[in-house]
Amino acid sequence: MIRRFPLVGLLLATLLPLVPLAQADETTPADAVTPSLPTAPSNRPVAWGLDNGMTVVLMENHANPMVAVRLLLPAGASREPEGQAGLAALTEALLWEGSHDHPGLELMQAFESLGIRANGGVGRDTTTVSVTALSREGGQAMALLAETVGTPNFDPADVDRIKGDLGAARRKSLEDPDTEAAMLFRAQLFAGHPYAHDPDGTVEGIAARSRDEIVAFHNRFYTPQGAVLVVAGDVDRPTLDQWLAPLDGWKGPLVAPIPRLPNWSKPQAQTATRDLSQSTILMGFLTIDRGDPDYPALYVANYILGGGGFTSRILHEIREKRGLAYSAYSYLTGGNAGGAFIAGAQTKNATRDEATALLRREIVRMAADGPSQEEFDAAIRYLTGSFPVQMDTLSKVADRIAVDQFQGLGADGPWRFLEQIRALTLDQVRAVARKHFHPDQIVAITVGGTVAPSTP
Amino acid sequence: MIRRFPLVGLLLATLLPLVPLAQADETTPADAVTPSLPTAPSNRPVAWGLDNGMTVVLMENHANPMVAVRLLLPAGASREPEGQAGLAALTEALLWEGSHDHPGLELMQAFESLGIRANGGVGRDTTTVSVTALSREGGQAMALLAETVGTPNFDPADVDRIKGDLGAARRKSLEDPDTEAAMLFRAQLFAGHPYAHDPDGTVEGIAARSRDEIVAFHNRFYTPQGAVLVVAGDVDRPTLDQWLAPLDGWKGPLVAPIPRLPNWSKPQAQTATRDLSQSTILMGFLTIDRGDPDYPALYVANYILGGGGFTSRILHEIREKRGLAYSAYSYLTGGNAGGAFIAGAQTKNATRDEATALLRREIVRMAADGPSQEEFDAAIRYLTGSFPVQMDTLSKVADRIAVDQFQGLGADGPWRFLEQIRALTLDQVRAVARKHFHPDQIVAITVGGTVAPSTP
Repeated sequence: MIRRFPLVGLLLATLLPLVPLAQADETTPADAVTPSLPTAPSNRPVAWGLDNGMTVVLMENHANPMVAVRLLLPAGASREPEGQAGLAALTEALLWEGSHDHPGLELMQAFESLGIRANGGVGRDTTTVSVTALSREGGQAMALLAETVGTPNFDPADVDRIKGDLGAARRKSLEDPDTEAAMLFRAQLFAGHPYAHDPDGTVEGIAARSRDEIVAFHNRFYTPQGAVLVVAGDVDRPTLDQWLAPLDGWKGPLVAPIPRLPNWSKPQAQTATRDLSQSTILMGFLTIDRGDPDYPALYVANYILGGGGFTSRILHEIREKRGLAYSAYSYLTGGNAGGAFIAGAQTKNATRDEATALLRREIVRMAADGPSQEEFDAAIRYLTGSFPVQMDTLSKVADRIAVDQFQGLGADGPWRFLEQIRALTLDQVRAVARKHFHPDQIVAITVGGTVAPSTP
Repeated sequence: MIRRFPLVGLLLATLLPLVPLAQADETTPADAVTPSLPTAPSNRPVAWGLDNGMTVVLMENHANPMVAVRLLLPAGASREPEGQAGLAALTEALLWEGSHDHPGLELMQAFESLGIRANGGVGRDTTTVSVTALSREGGQAMALLAETVGTPNFDPADVDRIKGDLGAARRKSLEDPDTEAAMLFRAQLFAGHPYAHDPDGTVEGIAARSRDEIVAFHNRFYTPQGAVLVVAGDVDRPTLDQWLAPLDGWKGPLVAPIPRLPNWSKPQAQTATRDLSQSTILMGFLTIDRGDPDYPALYVANYILGGGGFTSRILHEIREKRGLAYSAYSYLTGGNAGGAFIAGAQTKNATRDEATALLRREIVRMAADGPSQEEFDAAIRYLTGSFPVQMDTLSKVADRIAVDQFQGLGADGPWRFLEQIRALTLDQVRAVARKHFHPDQIVAITVGGTVAPSTP
């Protein structure tokens, strides 16, 4: 099935840019599909380039008769020309509305009739198209994928309809204070950089886009040069080479890298008042990204600070000890142009200031002293021990490989990250926490009401 | 990791009772973890009973060194005594706050130190506890599971704190009009029956619960009699028998079945007006459940009506042809006490009446004429062809087996459902659609604004 509730899915993908997508952006290394650690070299992915500039990665796994395919195109929201908000999202949504050989609904029917699941999504750096198919349908799946991405019709009636759909979805999503907080936070943290472009666009931006702009965006950024195609599952190299035939004729321009983010942010705070019983707090700063040698140690420090479930400091201090929030967390997020640290909590209006102060305090404390030996040991034990459990499907494997390859970390990035985590010492994590947590550069956003609720 | 954002997860699980949970409730049969169809008997699950009244199901799969465990207890929201809303949710949330041997946070730390992922959830019929672990930790995982479920401390300070957390989460979730619509719809469709109890409870109900009520609920409904334990993955029967030792001493009372739902509903319509640009529409009626011999045919009819992605009639009429909604769907949902059909859409206020009329029209049309030959062929092709893709993880396999076993369909229910779908004829689907779609009994809820938005 394809995009069963297409815009609901899109909505979910977009209204949570700072939580689930961030998790996807994070590197949680894994070697789930291999029977045990250490992983034999033959169970690592194999990568090669096509003449058209695309990188192909194959991760063989013959446990089930299926393949998971990910195509990452350099067509994320950060590619939108200034003032053209929503262009990436509209272009992706319109892919599914008909291609040259399968106009209109025929395209969806073609996927469905083969039992192929296909969908797409837009992030900061990439537009991703995902396909899951039985391996016996892999050749047809790849042909349909090439057609979907390469020859969309952009029928004017569909353009108008999808603009209406996306605009309504965006309008509705912004009625959720968490989404509004995420939007405000993104705009401030990344101000002046293309990462400030919201992958969901804006209500006004979506309404203002034209078919010509969409066609131009497609022509320029839906290009095999710099694109990454990952195939994980039940296929060998000779068969995959046959499947790739439909991509042979696909050509496109090379696109320049997005300018780097600065590695510091300007501290500021903003509060938006709404008629709500609860408040949403987001704070963070720009910092190193996943390509930095210090990243594994920073990842461990963040795990201990706010990324580690029930045992993280933030959750312990804010939720367990004081019952101030029903959600409190932190994470690292990064893309090709740079990285950021983000912490957040949801709390009652009455305890908003207290929760905000505690979030700041825990960031300061981690920067100053780093973790304890006990926290460090537990984190390393968890992060190395849980890899297989954290990556137990072809889809997760394909996602991780694709992101690492696209970000220049290599297709075996997840495995190398695991090795880096294993080799860390407590002193390294402390030094990196001191160096790359920037409590003096915190950008903070609060969306919430002014009135305390009448019942607890 | 355990319950990384525990209450966010819980919130998501609860604010979407009518969409994702419904999908989980639906039977989408599958035989993903077996290499090809037809499935050899040895690749079917094996079930047996323990002396304490619990059913154990083993689904062996040695592809990865992992196990997925599901424990379904007859402790769903429908078990709450009248006037004790929120009791099931509070009891489940408190399981994770400490047990006899691991008080407070030590319980979570014990799971985390083994890299075990564990969480719980409350539905109408069941409280479910899920564990994913490396198979080499399976014995310890089962011991921790037994301890978590069997000996929670219900520390008074934790009770107060979790009441605050759940209450705040519920209050916040109800600020989402979709959640409010789902709550109103559930209350009307199931009025007078325990299925009207919301698995998330109510803000007032959660605040009013006492520790004594929680302890009593735990004593009465956290019982092995009628419970189902499914283990899918890398373990054989002799090893599993050893893992089950910690459950040996667990005893508990037998609980009576929930009274059956009637098989008809009283038509009615309700509109709640809010300051919103969009409207949420839900409508449906009581009908047969998954144990009815007509269910497979009704499932196919619903797939064609509104369950089939881009090619469903509802999505085609409302979204593709008219651009009225960015989400439009229907599904069947059922539990041990009976089933229901539910359709929904989200649309602009200005087109709410038109979308509502179209939903009703398509239900009437399916009841009157059933599907066409072409629609029937495509649906059977998709539903039989996509099974492996729809069920490609141990977790999905364990979920499906557990629900079918708990609902009395047998542990091999998913496989038998596939065979039933394969054997259907168009005439059967038409007759069943006529018999079990009840357009004269529609219960409808709308939550939305009165003002059309100023931009499209």
